[in-house]
Amino acid sequence: MAPVKVFAPVMSTAATRVVLCLEEVGAEYERVNIDMATGEHKSPAHLARNPFGQVPAFQDGDLVLFESRAIGRYVLRKFKSSNVDLLHESSLEESAMVDVWLDVEAHQYDKVISPIFYQAVIIPRFYGGTTDEKVVEENSEKLGKVLDIYEARLSQTKYLAGDFFSFADLCHYPVTHFVTKVPQVAALLEARPHVKAWWESLESRPACKKVAAEFPQ
Amino acid sequence: MAPVKVFAPVMSTAATRVVLCLEEVGAEYERVNIDMATGEHKSPAHLARNPFGQVPAFQDGDLVLFESRAIGRYVLRKFKSSNVDLLHESSLEESAMVDVWLDVEAHQYDKVISPIFYQAVIIPRFYGGTTDEKVVEENSEKLGKVLDIYEARLSQTKYLAGDFFSFADLCHYPVTHFVTKVPQVAALLEARPHVKAWWESLESRPACKKVAAEFPQ
Ligand SMILES: N[C@@H](CCC(=O)N[C@@H](CS)C(=O)NCC(=O)O)C(=O)O
Ligand SMILES: N[C@@H](CCC(=O)N[C@@H](CS)C(=O)NCC(=O)O)C(=O)O
Repeated sequence: MAPVKVFAPVMSTAATRVVLCLEEVGAEYERVNIDMATGEHKSPAHLARNPFGQVPAFQDGDLVLFESRAIGRYVLRKFKSSNVDLLHESSLEESAMVDVWLDVEAHQYDKVISPIFYQAVIIPRFYGGTTDEKVVEENSEKLGKVLDIYEARLSQTKYLAGDFFSFADLCHYPVTHFVTKVPQVAALLEARPHVKAWWESLESRPACKKVAAEFPQ
Repeated sequence: MAPVKVFAPVMSTAATRVVLCLEEVGAEYERVNIDMATGEHKSPAHLARNPFGQVPAFQDGDLVLFESRAIGRYVLRKFKSSNVDLLHESSLEESAMVDVWLDVEAHQYDKVISPIFYQAVIIPRFYGGTTDEKVVEENSEKLGKVLDIYEARLSQTKYLAGDFFSFADLCHYPVTHFVTKVPQVAALLEARPHVKAWWESLESRPACKKVAAEFPQ
């Protein structure tokens, strides 16, 4: 069987979500670069994979998917094993908690951390521009409130969905990896010991180490 | 067994997503009003149900959940029957397409339709304020581009995830219901016959008719 394919540049945080799932389950996969600088993500070939003209897109034989969290679910279901089960779908209650914290990542966390990532990392490093510190400050304050809720949660359970590592934790990795050294974010982690320990446990996962080593330094 | 509980005011679009699922599966449920005008959603009792201080929250015995899409999944899994299966989780490919279009609703559609809902419906009707027509115009233009992709999709399959009705379709109902009479949105639907037919098929579902009849007129 041909390996599945991920269409995206290495630096895409959304694509990294998918690659992390593939690494966690130990599936074979092929990365196909999409050159966003030349607008390849808006080419007819890529629009046929993802009509919204974004990365990542994904292919498994005749099945073509987009939206990183949906692709991640598919990968985790398809390659689930007795060793690696990050959705816990055999338990109604556990899978519900995975879904709750996946939605928290998508609707509460990503919303406030992505502007920090964009301003403090993408703009200076990739566009040679200057960070708008006001955006960083405002969103760091909001992020602090979100992380207070994470701190309370993680003082009760080892991971977000419970005492088991899940897709909900993993989904946080890509963007967070890039902002932990932004001073405002570093200070937020430092002040929240359970969030910090949770974050360190993510960073120490082989899958996370591997994708981090592939990012442009 | 005690019926499950939905904590939210009737007018909450996010809560409506959950109620629609309960109606579709025919489960017994109890609605518990949360008085947002007095800030009840930020009370300790409600924060214990949803630490983000939002509605809806949900309870099934000892299990307490929040985030409307996660709750919807739980309801649809728990009460799934041979008649009503809106997640299609027994098929890897079909459930993947449901997940893709659920993420499209959450990440592409909601983002551009919610500001229209807020400006054209909530502000004049509930706050006695004046609609910012510029916000409506800008987001209607973006919504048009999103709906072009829906039109292409719905000219190939009867519903978003395929030729079967799913949670992905249902998730679109609450906000859309309130904006179809906003002139800019009405014009977008009128110009896209497949989207319009899809929308009419949603509106004619007994579950959708029932929740629509309960909304304040
Ligand atoms: N919700 C999408 C977001 C994907 C996304 O934002 N991708 C970015 C790169 S990380 C992109 O393609 N941006 C180009 C564009 O939106 O035109 C997902 O999770 O896959
Ligand atoms: N992502 C959440 C959004 C919930 C939401 O935005 N609820 C609104 C009412 S529809 C709310 O509680 N707003 C008050 C607040 O955010 O403080 C979900 O889907 O449940």
